[in-house]
Amino acid sequence: MPEQNKSTKNVYFFGAGSAEGKAEMKELLGGKGANLAEMTNLGIPVPPGFTLSTEVCAAFYENERNYPASLREEVAEHLQRLETMMGKKLGDAGDPLLVSVRSGAAQSMPGMMDTVLNLGLNDAAVEGLAEQSGNARFAKDAYRRFIQMYGDVVMGVEHEHFEHALEAAKKSKGVTEDTDLDADDLDGVIAAYKEIYASHTGSPFPQAPLDQLWGAIDAVFGSWNSTRAIRYRQIEGIKGLLGTAVNVQSMVFGNFGDDSGTGVCFTRDPSTGENTFYGEYLINAQGEDVVAGIRTPLPLSQLRDTAPEMMTQLEGVRERLEKHYRDMQDMEFTIQQGRLFLLQTRNGKRTGPAAVKLAIDMVNEGLISQQEAIGRVSADLLDQCLHPMIRAEARPKATLLATGLNASPGAATGQVVFTAEDAEAWVEQGKRVLLVRRETSPEDIGGMHAAQGILTATGGMTSHAAVVARGMGTPCVAGCKEVVISGAGASIDGFPVAEGQWLTIDGGTGEVFDGELPLITPKVTGDLATFLQWTDGIRDGASREGLEGFGIRTNADLPRDARVAREFGAEGIGLCRTEHMFFEEGKLEIFQEMIVAEDVDTRRAVLDRLLPLQREDFAGIFKAMDGFPVTVRLLDPPLHEFVPKTEADAEALAEASGVPLDRLKAKIESLHEMNPMLGHRGCRLGITYPEIYDMQVRAIMEAACAVAAGGAGVLPEIMIPLVGTLEELSRLRERAEKVAADVLASADAKVEYQIGTMIEIPRAAVTADRVAEAADFFSFGTNDLTQMMFGYSRDDAGVFLPEYVEQGILEEDPFQVLDREGVGTVVEMGVQRGRATKPDLKVGICGEHGGDPSSIEFCYQAGMNYVSCSPYRVPIARLAAAHAVLGISP
Amino acid sequence: MPEQNKSTKNVYFFGAGSAEGKAEMKELLGGKGANLAEMTNLGIPVPPGFTLSTEVCAAFYENERNYPASLREEVAEHLQRLETMMGKKLGDAGDPLLVSVRSGAAQSMPGMMDTVLNLGLNDAAVEGLAEQSGNARFAKDAYRRFIQMYGDVVMGVEHEHFEHALEAAKKSKGVTEDTDLDADDLDGVIAAYKEIYASHTGSPFPQAPLDQLWGAIDAVFGSWNSTRAIRYRQIEGIKGLLGTAVNVQSMVFGNFGDDSGTGVCFTRDPSTGENTFYGEYLINAQGEDVVAGIRTPLPLSQLRDTAPEMMTQLEGVRERLEKHYRDMQDMEFTIQQGRLFLLQTRNGKRTGPAAVKLAIDMVNEGLISQQEAIGRVSADLLDQCLHPMIRAEARPKATLLATGLNASPGAATGQVVFTAEDAEAWVEQGKRVLLVRRETSPEDIGGMHAAQGILTATGGMTSHAAVVARGMGTPCVAGCKEVVISGAGASIDGFPVAEGQWLTIDGGTGEVFDGELPLITPKVTGDLATFLQWTDGIRDGASREGLEGFGIRTNADLPRDARVAREFGAEGIGLCRTEHMFFEEGKLEIFQEMIVAEDVDTRRAVLDRLLPLQREDFAGIFKAMDGFPVTVRLLDPPLHEFVPKTEADAEALAEASGVPLDRLKAKIESLHEMNPMLGHRGCRLGITYPEIYDMQVRAIMEAACAVAAGGAGVLPEIMIPLVGTLEELSRLRERAEKVAADVLASADAKVEYQIGTMIEIPRAAVTADRVAEAADFFSFGTNDLTQMMFGYSRDDAGVFLPEYVEQGILEEDPFQVLDREGVGTVVEMGVQRGRATKPDLKVGICGEHGGDPSSIEFCYQAGMNYVSCSPYRVPIARLAAAHAVLGISP
Repeated sequence: MPEQNKSTKNVYFFGAGSAEGKAEMKELLGGKGANLAEMTNLGIPVPPGFTLSTEVCAAFYENERNYPASLREEVAEHLQRLETMMGKKLGDAGDPLLVSVRSGAAQSMPGMMDTVLNLGLNDAAVEGLAEQSGNARFAKDAYRRFIQMYGDVVMGVEHEHFEHALEAAKKSKGVTEDTDLDADDLDGVIAAYKEIYASHTGSPFPQAPLDQLWGAIDAVFGSWNSTRAIRYRQIEGIKGLLGTAVNVQSMVFGNFGDDSGTGVCFTRDPSTGENTFYGEYLINAQGEDVVAGIRTPLPLSQLRDTAPEMMTQLEGVRERLEKHYRDMQDMEFTIQQGRLFLLQTRNGKRTGPAAVKLAIDMVNEGLISQQEAIGRVSADLLDQCLHPMIRAEARPKATLLATGLNASPGAATGQVVFTAEDAEAWVEQGKRVLLVRRETSPEDIGGMHAAQGILTATGGMTSHAAVVARGMGTPCVAGCKEVVISGAGASIDGFPVAEGQWLTIDGGTGEVFDGELPLITPKVTGDLATFLQWTDGIRDGASREGLEGFGIRTNADLPRDARVAREFGAEGIGLCRTEHMFFEEGKLEIFQEMIVAEDVDTRRAVLDRLLPLQREDFAGIFKAMDGFPVTVRLLDPPLHEFVPKTEADAEALAEASGVPLDRLKAKIESLHEMNPMLGHRGCRLGITYPEIYDMQVRAIMEAACAVAAGGAGVLPEIMIPLVGTLEELSRLRERAEKVAADVLASADAKVEYQIGTMIEIPRAAVTADRVAEAADFFSFGTNDLTQMMFGYSRDDAGVFLPEYVEQGILEEDPFQVLDREGVGTVVEMGVQRGRATKPDLKVGICGEHGGDPSSIEFCYQAGMNYVSCSPYRVPIARLAAAHAVLGISP
Repeated sequence: MPEQNKSTKNVYFFGAGSAEGKAEMKELLGGKGANLAEMTNLGIPVPPGFTLSTEVCAAFYENERNYPASLREEVAEHLQRLETMMGKKLGDAGDPLLVSVRSGAAQSMPGMMDTVLNLGLNDAAVEGLAEQSGNARFAKDAYRRFIQMYGDVVMGVEHEHFEHALEAAKKSKGVTEDTDLDADDLDGVIAAYKEIYASHTGSPFPQAPLDQLWGAIDAVFGSWNSTRAIRYRQIEGIKGLLGTAVNVQSMVFGNFGDDSGTGVCFTRDPSTGENTFYGEYLINAQGEDVVAGIRTPLPLSQLRDTAPEMMTQLEGVRERLEKHYRDMQDMEFTIQQGRLFLLQTRNGKRTGPAAVKLAIDMVNEGLISQQEAIGRVSADLLDQCLHPMIRAEARPKATLLATGLNASPGAATGQVVFTAEDAEAWVEQGKRVLLVRRETSPEDIGGMHAAQGILTATGGMTSHAAVVARGMGTPCVAGCKEVVISGAGASIDGFPVAEGQWLTIDGGTGEVFDGELPLITPKVTGDLATFLQWTDGIRDGASREGLEGFGIRTNADLPRDARVAREFGAEGIGLCRTEHMFFEEGKLEIFQEMIVAEDVDTRRAVLDRLLPLQREDFAGIFKAMDGFPVTVRLLDPPLHEFVPKTEADAEALAEASGVPLDRLKAKIESLHEMNPMLGHRGCRLGITYPEIYDMQVRAIMEAACAVAAGGAGVLPEIMIPLVGTLEELSRLRERAEKVAADVLASADAKVEYQIGTMIEIPRAAVTADRVAEAADFFSFGTNDLTQMMFGYSRDDAGVFLPEYVEQGILEEDPFQVLDREGVGTVVEMGVQRGRATKPDLKVGICGEHGGDPSSIEFCYQAGMNYVSCSPYRVPIARLAAAHAVLGISP
């Protein structure tokens, strides 16, 4: 917080080609105020005025809604200067000055704070305005509008009261349009308005212009902490602002007649990024009319025909502003009696594809540098370029059935199936399907792969369906409570959904639509490919104390995923989970036999049958990554995840394994755990059943030898999960080295390989100096690390975590955005302590956070060598990593 | 590790009243060597000899079993000096010197390493010995023994081979005793032994005395790393030693005739601590004979009658050694032809009661200071003084049925019951019962309280039964696999056990005996009380950078426990778990109604009924603690722990609550969690259901006001559990403060209270600087902290944790002994960061570790203000805390 009256200057003037502020003073003057000052200094026509700074707002709230002592005097001085400049006086009965009073914070909060127009009118001034403008109706209408707006905004009188009075006036005259009321009619409306005002506020409508002005200033500053403004800032994550500024600006009128008008324009097309002047305008209207949508505005191109002179002026402004700001501008203008005024300019919002095109074009035009261009595209904007989207024109006509969680982005359309088996079967028949489940489980993996999209009734953003879908790049709407599945059918918010019916989901918004909507599927080619290559250049050039570059890897379990990730630019695999392989048909059954094996010899014999299957999987992945490093994590989940769930499956397993059913069931029962997350899994299995890891290491090294013998590059990195102590790692490492040496000797091959560990147990992070003794690399498993640092089970936290975020106890869901304060502290300890033991220790991240821009920035700053994320997040990660290198925070 | 040849001196001489070593050189010379040197210097008769240092042993292993270059020469020099002093030569055919070669490390490892006696005998020397001693049979027997011992110890010839040959000789002569063989017979045995030696080793028995000597030295150094020695050091936790020393000492013989003998004695009674000379001896015997138990030794008191001259000498030595060492000594002596020699002295092992008595007496005698006395009693010894024990004389006759885990110390005897209800019912009828269960659960709490002891079939050291039993001071044997419960009966390792049958358990050893064995129950009075008061003085005087004293509190949930703890010396309650109160009959039903309440108003109404019951509980505890601080933890466990488990209970609850059964069941179902440890519990419940904490805070403060109004002191500390973020704590604190203010205002009372938090979530520890902003105190909940730092569920880790400790992956079970390296790191961070924000922050521990001596030492060093442990551990904690203050490591 600033000290009170840190700056002794509270008010900043702008007008007549010169301003006390400038564009860089956004924090102090708000975006609107700073840009009005900047345009004034540029000589662009801006109605003069002055800005009360955001520091005034901060002081206001720090001092129980009292202003700095000098403020009234400063405002009086600036008002006088404005009156002098304009040759008019506020409230003057002859030629009154009218002003607008508008909010404007450093970040845009559209519609969240208050505005008062036409301020300065009173019973006397309205006559002066009528005379000066030669338009009594205009003057009366302005006065009427002012009373309504002031009553509503400043005094909290419900606007319906005023509207009823206006309706009554029209009714009594027998007309329907406001414009059908003439000046005399409006006198009646004004009288009625003043009565409404007095009866609701207990005092007459203020006639003293200074009272009006301070009322409006109070209202605007007060609106900074209105419930809706606070809520908006929470939702949008707007933090660290001092408050709003207040802009007091002389009024110009677009509703002065047919030589007047108002409009909004963009220096380029904000949808496509095309370099065309794009906008809309209305003749004889005020800005409010455009916003209210009462009249349909005309495309800007028509202005050239109807008012070529105006258009030429506007195009001049367009060129000057874009050159000056070096970015696409979103401008508001008003024409009063043929004279152009700019009321606002700001960098224009844009779609993802437009953002990329603008960035590329502006570099080519020499307007901005490549680095600036990269800074112009946010991860969210880039994300829009990477997923199938419902065609914009199809949306308005579509039937929205429900909205769930936007669990995995992209749109998908397909015929509904209710089981994973059906999904696979239907797809084999050439159909496109949408898998609808209460929730998914590891056995559904085949069907999830086959489906176009996934829709679940329960589960959160980190449920199985959500995590797996994001990993596969499959659109997913999760936790859609309106979905009720019963037997062979379902309903969505009461709408019946039968098997085979077409649905469309948008995983980026969580929407579920009836029917088959048309989609567009973008590709990483052209401008997008160029843009991403630029980001790679930034990453490659990164240099932190002895660390060169910053890599992007992917989490991929299958050769197909590995290939997709390569196409998206992945430079290796940061996490290949071997257990997903075991869920495949033909492997799961063997794996189950291994679990129930009653002695080590039997277990070894079963593992010998799994060996060639795992070897084949690894060979496929090594080939797909063609010389890039591949981190293979040895078996991690607890064994009970793999055992038969049904009586029939248990019987089949008893048959296949030769283990009597009762003993087999007892074995399955004995695997049950109270807290599986903290149970017998990861390297703990490797210690208890060393033959499992032996088989996996053998499969990895044999596959590596085979691929290397074929002439391809191979860089296997064997990763031991869930390590909490050096001893676990060093013992398993020793064993793995023996197996690897054996394989290499048998194959007479030389294949470089590394052995390292996940850092996902808090203890491993804080004792990383010890653990590093036996590790060639660390890969932070921030999913589990977050679970254990917070003591949150991802499976169970859905009951309170959303409420925690909602209430602001947590700023973000820590499973989506890495918690820097807590989890980040031990990650940094892990990196620093690990490198204290091994200065060249390779360090990366393979949790879900590896695809989140804020988390990527953290990883870069923490000194990691790379991040790893799901294949479909790789482009986002490339951009976010470049942003991190450039010091651009998400 | 020491650098090789750090000391250039490898061998240390002792003899004729002067030695190169001394008692303080234990690390270098081993305990035996250092004390032989010390006694020599004191002028006590010790057979001369020399010691090869432990550094030789270390160098031997560092250099692939090669000795330092100078060693042979040094040994030769010292041997020559010994020969000169003794006037005899090793291997001399006329008057041979004989030596023993014995191991001796800095810490005692009885029987783990090798010894060779009578070394120096060969075919020529045996004749010289026969001549010199005038006893051919003695000489031949010594030679025979030497060949056997050398063959066995140095060359690994199984001793059975020798024994068979001896048996054969006796058989052929038709006798049964060794002593019936005369010198000629022994010549035959010697010949047979040499043949056995040659055939098993491939070379003849070495005749050169130096070869014999080096063979023995090699064997003793080699035995340091024998499998059994390594295993012994693992089990006993012996670490950091360089190796063993080797003592080469001239032989004396207790088997030289009836004026010779050997014995072991203690300067005081090691069982009781009485100041009486205690020991045993044998006439005409070697030390080995005593150890082997072939002959029954005589009590030392008889020596006064049979050899008053000897006894007088021995008593002189007793007095000198005890005065010199200022501790009770355990001595070995040999009398050769009327001449006394001391072969060893060391501090004697003692029982717990003896340890306390010795400590007190020696202070009273002016022998040692109070501080030294405190250092003489270990926590384990003190523990023996605090629990009922099976009378020693009853043990040999008792029938041991099985051995389980020693889950809660003390012996207990009672009639078997199989349910908690029966336990309560039988006890009401005046019976003493032993509760036998597969495992216990929170509903069993009443029966567990009622029972004398608890025996469970499953569960580990930290199972429910074990934790609760330790908390109550009830003896418990847990995880006794031999216990099989079926229907109304049970069996233990096949032995049938019916309801009502008497069993006795020893929770300190894990033993389960048939029948009712007699017990002795110690009290904290007399010497024990005095001793503990001394420890309190040490604690009270402790001073660490601005921290005065070091407190001992207790974990107690009920007034009864609080009173017990006060009697044991607790200075407050560090953890009062409010949820245990809810498991009591009459409260559980109301609590369940609260859980299933369908709206906030209903929930509040039910809580209003709980309020007076909780208030009463708290008032009882406040009264019992009479002005000492009481930390009350608000509700912690997940709600599903409280819901009905059976259909009948569910129906009863539906009836009582008015919630329809199907909705009630759905509610219960919805509370199920995958990982309850990481689920919706602790302050997360407080955030979701603030009315629960409101009620508890109100109950605490109302009780405090009521007790204070009665004139007693009250110091309530409200503890909010499972905090992970400052925000959780600050919001709940604010709410609690409002409730407290409201209560105080209504009662018009002034009661000081504090609000603080458990630090048990890793994130809270690493962000303690933030959390401390809203905390008056921290209490480390190291049970959960250990679970989350390691990622071990206490409920599930039983599958791998014992193996981890067994294999040495973990040095200790981290739930028993605080893991300093990992968990300790974040505890230290928590203390330091917390105090960085609030220098006066009160910090304690309330996990199970609060009663473990090593963990208490850590807590002291980490700067905590107090530790808190179960009532029955309070005396142990008082001692361990005093040790920590004195810098005596457990």
